[in-house]
Amino acid sequence: MTTEQLISQIKIKKSFLCVGLDVDLDKIPTHLLELEDPIFEFNKAIIDATHDLAVAYKPNIAFFEAYGIKGWLSLKKTINYINENYPDIFTIADAKRGDIGNTSAMYAKAFFEDLNFDSITVAPYMGKDSVEPFLAFENKHTIMLALTSNVGAFDFQTLQVDGKELYKHVLETAKTWKNSQNLMYVVGATKAEYFTEIRKIVPDSFLLVPGIGAQGGSLSEVCKYGMNANVGLLINSSRAIIYASKGTDFVVKARAEALQMQQEMEGILNVSFLK
Amino acid sequence: MTTEQLISQIKIKKSFLCVGLDVDLDKIPTHLLELEDPIFEFNKAIIDATHDLAVAYKPNIAFFEAYGIKGWLSLKKTINYINENYPDIFTIADAKRGDIGNTSAMYAKAFFEDLNFDSITVAPYMGKDSVEPFLAFENKHTIMLALTSNVGAFDFQTLQVDGKELYKHVLETAKTWKNSQNLMYVVGATKAEYFTEIRKIVPDSFLLVPGIGAQGGSLSEVCKYGMNANVGLLINSSRAIIYASKGTDFVVKARAEALQMQQEMEGILNVSFLK
Repeated sequence: MTTEQLISQIKIKKSFLCVGLDVDLDKIPTHLLELEDPIFEFNKAIIDATHDLAVAYKPNIAFFEAYGIKGWLSLKKTINYINENYPDIFTIADAKRGDIGNTSAMYAKAFFEDLNFDSITVAPYMGKDSVEPFLAFENKHTIMLALTSNVGAFDFQTLQVDGKELYKHVLETAKTWKNSQNLMYVVGATKAEYFTEIRKIVPDSFLLVPGIGAQGGSLSEVCKYGMNANVGLLINSSRAIIYASKGTDFVVKARAEALQMQQEMEGILNVSFLK
Repeated sequence: MTTEQLISQIKIKKSFLCVGLDVDLDKIPTHLLELEDPIFEFNKAIIDATHDLAVAYKPNIAFFEAYGIKGWLSLKKTINYINENYPDIFTIADAKRGDIGNTSAMYAKAFFEDLNFDSITVAPYMGKDSVEPFLAFENKHTIMLALTSNVGAFDFQTLQVDGKELYKHVLETAKTWKNSQNLMYVVGATKAEYFTEIRKIVPDSFLLVPGIGAQGGSLSEVCKYGMNANVGLLINSSRAIIYASKGTDFVVKARAEALQMQQEMEGILNVSFLK
């Protein structure tokens, strides 16, 4: 999917919501556990109930890998289901990968080709040659960690390097890499005041924003400081939507949560943008 | 496996060699491609031919994921084969994982429980709560990136923070985390002179050292600056061993390469250590 197509979907749906699929068998409705592939069935139900309110889905790869081969099969079925039934959805493999060049090339192959995701999250620590193999794929997007939403973000990401924080160096350096137009960045919502500074470095890039809801971030604050002329934000919500209820009404409750977020977003979106 | 058991194996085998399993179907002998699971068959042959010369095997997870479900099955068969036939081998999932706490816990479950690896490589960028879920597993080892062997290592890892490089902050900070006795670190062989400084910070920890051979590092230099009283080094070699030949003699050639490395190591190992 191109960035233009993503922006177009945001206009059509009046939403920049991304639904995170972090499926834990201990947390889903128990009646699903009797089915052959409860993870896929849960995802399918959530997707069917929210696809008109969200522009992106973000399967969290750890939650599939934890179930071994079965989990990997559920992941494959989930991404195929989205691609076949809702081709306008932007898909994110939340995988936080990154390794030396020939290894990153294999991860890129796994997620962009074998699974056919539109994008993948990657970690920056190993530098340029660990990220560029992902950037080489046309119309695929590489979402690099910049400033994350967890407390550990303050261990290294905000260390001062030459008078400014490490995450700013990461952003400035990444902009110089080959095919950097294919980069997006992860910026946690729990640090809304940082968005002003980040937008000075990457004014046009899309930012994937976790941390709204369960982790305490505010949608209006993030939009106030982080939104650009093309919106430039994908706001992720995982647990607040997918675990809105553990009963047989989980689909209805998930939709209600997603609808509430979409309506908040519609209220924020600039009238001129939507024309 | 405990650290003591690993040290004991180094004494018995007079070796601190780790063989990296980065299996690319384009590079393995063509006669294997006719078999049902060429990746597993290749790994099995390499392991059978070198298990008395190596103390560790390191499947590179990207190279399995790139082949989708089939690759994941090959990974499962490979780790099971090692655990069942060579239980004294230390196994490393080279996965470079790391995410917010509940997600890292799922990765830990995937690699320590479902696949039953002894250790996993992780990335430090997200800080303490992204690594501690791995450290909570008893007799499992978490091998964190410190200073890597690729050129991108100089993008961020060596940035100056308060007068010293970022990777030193990473080492010093990680030492303060809960269960940090379960940490090992990745330090690239291409930067042998850095080992002196690193040993001042982590004198007792095991270091996993890629970059000998194909990437240009020198075994004797690394040992000179990086070895401690318990050896404290696992030297990885991937391509130089597993792709020593593409012909039907690949097993013989792989063993010859591994033997040469083991003999170099035996020559370096202190006589008093081996008693």
